Amino acid sequence: MKSTAIFYHAGCPVCVDAEQNLAAALDPNRVNVEIVHFGDQPQRLGEAEQQGVKSVPALVLDGQVFHINFGASLSDLR
Amino acid sequence: MKSTAIFYHAGCPVCVDAEQNLAAALDPNRVNVEIVHFGDQPQRLGEAEQQGVKSVPALVLDGQVFHINFGASLSDLR
Repeated sequence: MKSTAIFYHAGCPVCVDAEQNLAAALDPNRVNVEIVHFGDQPQRLGEAEQQGVKSVPALVLDGQVFHINFGASLSDLR
Repeated sequence: MKSTAIFYHAGCPVCVDAEQNLAAALDPNRVNVEIVHFGDQPQRLGEAEQQGVKSVPALVLDGQVFHINFGASLSDLR
């Protein structure tokens, strides 16, 4: 079964680097990656917080949160 | 051309999670991933520091450093 990954970001330079390099390097045969930009989808901040996302960029892979470097706190995005 | 990635870790639980999930999800057709465990290869601490690695686990992808969550500072591993 394919893994599900959600990459949360906020358009910051650190986020864009992580998206274009790390998220883009995931195996498309094994992982379905959804990209969520909080600038476009602020209503998903709550969902991200509930999963344990504290900052962006973050990748939630099968429910496990990986914070990748540090762009911005979720609390600063509200 | 294939990307080159080095995943640095120190055997900590946070490191193992990142290795088994995030590093393992990279596309093997596009990325050659080398796993470096500082417990086995302490002589590579200097190389990691020179690339900008501050803590483990970290993934260096084509020279760009991605710190993934936080397991331990490199300075604590010396």
